Amino acid sequence: MVTVSASRQPADSSNTTSTLDAGMLQSALCRPLSTAFREERDTFGPMMVPADKLWGAQTQRSLQNFDIGGQREQMPEPIIRAFGILKKCAAKVNMEYGLDPSIGRAIMQAAQEVAEGKLNDHFPLVIWQTGSGTQSNMNANEVIANRAAEILGHKHGEKFVHPNDHVNRAQSSNDTFPTVMHIAAAVEVNSKFIPNLKQLHSSLHSKCVEFKDIIKIGRTHTQDATPLTLGQEFSGYATQVKYAIDRITDTLPRMYQLAQGGTAVGTGLNSKKGFDVKIAAAVAEETNLPFVTAENKFEALAAHDAFVETSGALNTISASLVKIANDIRLLGSGPRCGLGELILPENEPGSSIMPGKVNPTQCEALTMVCAQVMGNHVAITVGGSNGHFELNVYKPLIASALLRSLRLLGDACSSFEKNCVRGIKANSERISKLLHESLMLVTSLNPKIGYDKAAAVAKKAHKEGSTLKESAFNLGVLTEQEFDELVVPEKMIGPSD
Amino acid sequence: MVTVSASRQPADSSNTTSTLDAGMLQSALCRPLSTAFREERDTFGPMMVPADKLWGAQTQRSLQNFDIGGQREQMPEPIIRAFGILKKCAAKVNMEYGLDPSIGRAIMQAAQEVAEGKLNDHFPLVIWQTGSGTQSNMNANEVIANRAAEILGHKHGEKFVHPNDHVNRAQSSNDTFPTVMHIAAAVEVNSKFIPNLKQLHSSLHSKCVEFKDIIKIGRTHTQDATPLTLGQEFSGYATQVKYAIDRITDTLPRMYQLAQGGTAVGTGLNSKKGFDVKIAAAVAEETNLPFVTAENKFEALAAHDAFVETSGALNTISASLVKIANDIRLLGSGPRCGLGELILPENEPGSSIMPGKVNPTQCEALTMVCAQVMGNHVAITVGGSNGHFELNVYKPLIASALLRSLRLLGDACSSFEKNCVRGIKANSERISKLLHESLMLVTSLNPKIGYDKAAAVAKKAHKEGSTLKESAFNLGVLTEQEFDELVVPEKMIGPSD
Amino acid sequence: MVTVSASRQPADSSNTTSTLDAGMLQSALCRPLSTAFREERDTFGPMMVPADKLWGAQTQRSLQNFDIGGQREQMPEPIIRAFGILKKCAAKVNMEYGLDPSIGRAIMQAAQEVAEGKLNDHFPLVIWQTGSGTQSNMNANEVIANRAAEILGHKHGEKFVHPNDHVNRAQSSNDTFPTVMHIAAAVEVNSKFIPNLKQLHSSLHSKCVEFKDIIKIGRTHTQDATPLTLGQEFSGYATQVKYAIDRITDTLPRMYQLAQGGTAVGTGLNSKKGFDVKIAAAVAEETNLPFVTAENKFEALAAHDAFVETSGALNTISASLVKIANDIRLLGSGPRCGLGELILPENEPGSSIMPGKVNPTQCEALTMVCAQVMGNHVAITVGGSNGHFELNVYKPLIASALLRSLRLLGDACSSFEKNCVRGIKANSERISKLLHESLMLVTSLNPKIGYDKAAAVAKKAHKEGSTLKESAFNLGVLTEQEFDELVVPEKMIGPSD
Amino acid sequence: MVTVSASRQPADSSNTTSTLDAGMLQSALCRPLSTAFREERDTFGPMMVPADKLWGAQTQRSLQNFDIGGQREQMPEPIIRAFGILKKCAAKVNMEYGLDPSIGRAIMQAAQEVAEGKLNDHFPLVIWQTGSGTQSNMNANEVIANRAAEILGHKHGEKFVHPNDHVNRAQSSNDTFPTVMHIAAAVEVNSKFIPNLKQLHSSLHSKCVEFKDIIKIGRTHTQDATPLTLGQEFSGYATQVKYAIDRITDTLPRMYQLAQGGTAVGTGLNSKKGFDVKIAAAVAEETNLPFVTAENKFEALAAHDAFVETSGALNTISASLVKIANDIRLLGSGPRCGLGELILPENEPGSSIMPGKVNPTQCEALTMVCAQVMGNHVAITVGGSNGHFELNVYKPLIASALLRSLRLLGDACSSFEKNCVRGIKANSERISKLLHESLMLVTSLNPKIGYDKAAAVAKKAHKEGSTLKESAFNLGVLTEQEFDELVVPEKMIGPSD
Repeated sequence: MVTVSASRQPADSSNTTSTLDAGMLQSALCRPLSTAFREERDTFGPMMVPADKLWGAQTQRSLQNFDIGGQREQMPEPIIRAFGILKKCAAKVNMEYGLDPSIGRAIMQAAQEVAEGKLNDHFPLVIWQTGSGTQSNMNANEVIANRAAEILGHKHGEKFVHPNDHVNRAQSSNDTFPTVMHIAAAVEVNSKFIPNLKQLHSSLHSKCVEFKDIIKIGRTHTQDATPLTLGQEFSGYATQVKYAIDRITDTLPRMYQLAQGGTAVGTGLNSKKGFDVKIAAAVAEETNLPFVTAENKFEALAAHDAFVETSGALNTISASLVKIANDIRLLGSGPRCGLGELILPENEPGSSIMPGKVNPTQCEALTMVCAQVMGNHVAITVGGSNGHFELNVYKPLIASALLRSLRLLGDACSSFEKNCVRGIKANSERISKLLHESLMLVTSLNPKIGYDKAAAVAKKAHKEGSTLKESAFNLGVLTEQEFDELVVPEKMIGPSD
Repeated sequence: MVTVSASRQPADSSNTTSTLDAGMLQSALCRPLSTAFREERDTFGPMMVPADKLWGAQTQRSLQNFDIGGQREQMPEPIIRAFGILKKCAAKVNMEYGLDPSIGRAIMQAAQEVAEGKLNDHFPLVIWQTGSGTQSNMNANEVIANRAAEILGHKHGEKFVHPNDHVNRAQSSNDTFPTVMHIAAAVEVNSKFIPNLKQLHSSLHSKCVEFKDIIKIGRTHTQDATPLTLGQEFSGYATQVKYAIDRITDTLPRMYQLAQGGTAVGTGLNSKKGFDVKIAAAVAEETNLPFVTAENKFEALAAHDAFVETSGALNTISASLVKIANDIRLLGSGPRCGLGELILPENEPGSSIMPGKVNPTQCEALTMVCAQVMGNHVAITVGGSNGHFELNVYKPLIASALLRSLRLLGDACSSFEKNCVRGIKANSERISKLLHESLMLVTSLNPKIGYDKAAAVAKKAHKEGSTLKESAFNLGVLTEQEFDELVVPEKMIGPSD
Repeated sequence: MVTVSASRQPADSSNTTSTLDAGMLQSALCRPLSTAFREERDTFGPMMVPADKLWGAQTQRSLQNFDIGGQREQMPEPIIRAFGILKKCAAKVNMEYGLDPSIGRAIMQAAQEVAEGKLNDHFPLVIWQTGSGTQSNMNANEVIANRAAEILGHKHGEKFVHPNDHVNRAQSSNDTFPTVMHIAAAVEVNSKFIPNLKQLHSSLHSKCVEFKDIIKIGRTHTQDATPLTLGQEFSGYATQVKYAIDRITDTLPRMYQLAQGGTAVGTGLNSKKGFDVKIAAAVAEETNLPFVTAENKFEALAAHDAFVETSGALNTISASLVKIANDIRLLGSGPRCGLGELILPENEPGSSIMPGKVNPTQCEALTMVCAQVMGNHVAITVGGSNGHFELNVYKPLIASALLRSLRLLGDACSSFEKNCVRGIKANSERISKLLHESLMLVTSLNPKIGYDKAAAVAKKAHKEGSTLKESAFNLGVLTEQEFDELVVPEKMIGPSD
Repeated sequence: MVTVSASRQPADSSNTTSTLDAGMLQSALCRPLSTAFREERDTFGPMMVPADKLWGAQTQRSLQNFDIGGQREQMPEPIIRAFGILKKCAAKVNMEYGLDPSIGRAIMQAAQEVAEGKLNDHFPLVIWQTGSGTQSNMNANEVIANRAAEILGHKHGEKFVHPNDHVNRAQSSNDTFPTVMHIAAAVEVNSKFIPNLKQLHSSLHSKCVEFKDIIKIGRTHTQDATPLTLGQEFSGYATQVKYAIDRITDTLPRMYQLAQGGTAVGTGLNSKKGFDVKIAAAVAEETNLPFVTAENKFEALAAHDAFVETSGALNTISASLVKIANDIRLLGSGPRCGLGELILPENEPGSSIMPGKVNPTQCEALTMVCAQVMGNHVAITVGGSNGHFELNVYKPLIASALLRSLRLLGDACSSFEKNCVRGIKANSERISKLLHESLMLVTSLNPKIGYDKAAAVAKKAHKEGSTLKESAFNLGVLTEQEFDELVVPEKMIGPSD
């Protein structure tokens, strides 16, 4: 262990000091307590690395060269955990192909710790690095190599376990990072996102049942229309969420395809035949998800269409959720000067100046999240379309944006379900009052008196502020009795026999 | 037939004259030869309509109230044709429910003419009208009613066949327009878009085969990388297009769901039980596509998630095509100062100032189209998310943007395939020259001498401008013979045994 | 000259086998009556061109090579007209640099006809062609050359006036097309878009004045809040439109910069010194707008940041207009079951099934347009970011999308102003009723009894359905007299002294 | 005060059953060491709050109700700091209007600590909360009130200094949060973003000078074109960045407008006349930026057009930077199989499998950031367009997305400048070789022999692989001497006299 003395000159020697300082500052931010450094080396030469950190020279170099955004912009945790899963599986398969078993087992143990999030503090790199994610792959290789060496009783930095030759064996960042992207996304979709959608669907469906007998006025163009039940209205929302589950599920077959085995450009150079199939099987076993090796590795490295597609599903789901949340806040508007048909849970004071105010805050959080998901979708599309030749180099952007969308949308659905939907009540009195005042009940007269006369009835009532019945009677198109027989909201909520 | 005298006052009487003039101007634009007008009526009163046109009062009113964008912005033709299909089917089914057969048959005949595009000139309305598409629905109802009346020997405007009571019978714009949207989109996808993608896939696949033995340098990060065959490179493109077909196909089940039968708000008021199922069956028969009635009509009116989803597929496909087109133009760059690996067809002079210049213009047209499709996707997403209550009122926007994306992307794929991909040739001499100069062949030394030493070999060669072999020999890591055995591009294009 | 027995074919027939047929089909579409062809030549060889059309071989070649989208996708008319302006100015300046005056004058005359839209039928090319717009530039050169030759008594196709050497003299498509883009956009902004915004601002401002004394309940989070006047509410809208005018105006300085004089790559090769300044001055004189030569021609060819920027202004303006239109339709919702504070003009029947229904259709058309503008903005951004080296090759996409946005947004503002805003009336009775029922008047008690007690008053009233006064009295925090003195809506619409 | 036996729980454990647990979990995440709680109260009742935290009941409630995204999603620090600035100014002005001076001074001191970032740990709330930012405003009020009380010797939670009546005095979240948004954005733009752009501009401009005499081949459509100097090429980039500075600067006048003084709905209820002007002046003094009170407070609360506009500027700047970064990576492609005209700094090993590989990683980080900025722009646009009535409730989304875009883009520009642009070198030998092989030098023959003959010369040379001179001589259009006089690259980089 040494104190800081010198380090390789950065590209432009004129700014040596400031670059070095920036790097150290960054390091310091991540490890406020470390005051000692050790030397690590890569093919560019030696680097000083905080002594209590497991990373090596390439990670340190990236820290210094990409001072973009600070700690908030670190590579998302699901990516780190997926690296753990993958590197564990790689070691396991590599042992079949000749990797020294003692080293292999140590790598597996170290990788398992990464998969469990125990070594998160050793992954300081930000999203905004090389577009292949090479530096995060090397971060994983370096951390696992040092930790495995430690397990085997060797010192950090000595490369008894080599980050490239042992941990990264038979792999390239170019197949590793997309594999990790797919693992992280598929795990998040299955473990959290779909369950949250299902819970929301279930809750909306319960409301359909709860509200099935409450007849209310419909609204089209925001204007009064013919009636429906509140349960029917919620059935539309429930159906949207049901299809949301279908939509995200439909994207999974392509997400389950893993690039691993393509190595540098998709050919599989420096890997052995069968490596790709075995590693996909190992990942499938480890995650209990049906991963398979990608049928075409060139596509799997050079494009991330599967991510653009999945983001497209999230975009569609966001459009659905905006509709639902908007309806709920508008139907719950009031308490006295709005539509007032729904009573939303009161979770917190709504205003710092207006006492007693309660707001549809869960709808607001959800719709804000949806807007961000729509934005991320454009970011992912731009990144996804701009691959060049054998590699797309927008990988960390694409991965981080999709994972953020998945996390936010899943969490927001859960919060919305728990803190809003579940507690929605119908304001039956208000609903009934509005229903019976509406002029659009006139629609049920069409089959009897025709569209033109029915229109005249409605227009007359509107102009005079009278009831439809009065208007119909005064126009002489119907008797009161005929009117009462025809205009029955309960008969207006479905097709006739 | 009358000459123009008076007409109902528009909302603000102060601009009567100009509004009327605007409408007439618009009419005049569409029919430069008509100089006579007849009176038509709707529930707002009488309107003067060009005597040689079949539309009625509501169409005319829309023409005057929505002077937005001019003729280029008329409702897309696939929508008009789909109206023909739907109204024909509606008449057929309505006859089962009591519609006078002679009227029904006349409606069917008139609707068939609309479906065949014979009455296109009678559909002057622009996209930018009411968001329910009501006015285009009424345009269809009015044209078909007048044409059917004509067939039955009655005059236009007399409503012997009534646009609402007969043609629109048991229908609302609110279920009709989404039905027409789905019919139009599904027909376009099946009849043109997917066939064009398939042709492109086939052509790319042929190139994989044609180029399967041409070994070339790979490029990652735009920098030299390990080799692959040109056929492998094209296999990535072919796979992208193959998945493109899967992606668009996966969206069809939800596109085949028809809203018809939901009427005004989704309940089916004023329709008869079974109408929805029968009309979906009739449309399926008419189009030979597996349309079914939507399982939830509330969702089908209030949301257009199926369109957002399909647009998402087009967005993903665009991202794929941008990648492919960019690669092809860059690999074809030159002729003397670029990469020069591909020879693209020369279709036209490329420059108005630089004699002899030939450009990758098909790539340019395609990528421009893709950019527009990505933009339309945002438009559709914004529109799709903003439904209120029982109705989404961005229908014409959503429909027109998706149909434009489908048409442009399909046509551009076809043009690209025919005028570019099909004629691509490999510049084998250039490819071979670049391959053998590359330093990245060093990668094949990793398993033998390790990553760090291999890196030293490559760096030394790069620095000195020497060959890898010289560098390896001078560094003493390998004999020339060993080098020649290890560095064989032909062995670098796949995993080893 | 040859005669071809061309029969008109339907627009959407499937692609015919030979490319010549496709071109003839396309030609046929544009000129249903022409049956004769003449030969034109370019550096690729001879081409048959419809005898009654002025275009030449390169235009014809493009017609055949880019069968994308059909007639609706032709290059927008403002671009064609701007070509007329530019080519006229180029001839004028070129005469100063040695162009034969008789040829120069004929070119000017022909170009003037293009500028006036008289030769629109001779510009058949679609947007989706080469990304430099070279083919449309050649279309202009060919049409003007043939027309100028005709003026001088020569035959078409003989190149007495040469499209390149005379009409395109000292120009490249690469500087010409961006110049035309800037001219077209600046003319549209000044002649139509800003005037339409100003009219809308004026109309909204009139409503501020008209409604200045109508006190109404405010709404935040869609929930009841403290009062304001309806005039104040409209003043927010008017301010948004006022700033909209500022925003679009701020972009003009960069739009007034013309690329002309940069020729092929920005250096000005084959032009004479001073040509760039003179031609900008000529265009300024011709258009009466302050065009200047671009200070850096490399930027002006290789990027279209000015278009991305201007589109950004339209995007912001769209966001403003969506807010305004949404508010108006929600405030006008009803007539009996909505907020009902505004009475919107009734312009047309609103429903094909619900008699008497009237909808906020102008709000719908406007918000649909805004969604398309937001989408076009993404398309323009994608195109604008993807220039390579000395040229951006998304020019026709960028130009057409911006011009469409300008046209639609300007027209929709005008329609919205004329058919909606101008005729909005306040429903004073309804507004007053809602105001006095609101609980948020409690806010005026804060300074007197503090936030916590005021909240208790509001919550009690809400729970019990009582008035605030009763609640305050029953809680013992205020006497009735004190309440009456404090809770006065008229005193709640501004800060206190 | 109570003690709770809280054990630390992992970040992503599934939601626990009661909301209190969830809140405690969240609290635990933020303060792993706290084990004690105190009671705080708001109008909804008592809440347990970690004893070592300064926040109160409303903050705690939000923590529990909005479990969305975890710590990474906390409100951005510039917002927290701006709250400190604003609350300090508010106390200062409120003392002029009667706030007890001892309380006022304590508030100022506490707020100053917030402004300096010293109390960041007490701001745990996430972006995804109520759309007005009320909860973050209350977080600031509560923390400052408790800290001020502490300063004055009072206990936390006793409300000796009241969060609403004292700290939030004369303010509403509805005017406070937009004010804080504007302060945060304007400070970031001025203190970091513009300086970073200026540094990048300066560095690019230096390259223009450094490369002014290096003549190289131009490229249009990615194909060889006429020559220019490398300095000219970089001058295009420098101009783009120069305009970028203009563009962001142009948006500031509207960003300097502060909403404060509008209170709940824009009317200024419960504030005193002049408060708005005074507080804007105080903020201006505190920040040394020219803030003024917004001319229309209704617009300032209900819309965030200024943010959409500023985001639009960032979007345009991103488009510019993508162009620049793409050019640089393509011009630097190689080392042996690419264009190879530029030599980029080598900052780190480029590949985990390909030894010796160096990649344009700074270009990659920058373009990934640009893609995210484009995406955020859509998110901001969607949020900005969806205000309802007197309030836009997408404030935290809009603020966080813009601040993230500003930070990332500024940092990435700085990193790109320091680690890439500054160290770019020209590969003069390669540049010269390519230049002299190009066929597009033929363009200089146009004025002498005309476009058509010049095209024939180029085409013949291309076909035969010969030089232009040979081709011209063999075609008999020029003598060798004439050719040598006309084709001089040095004369092709500008207009002629």
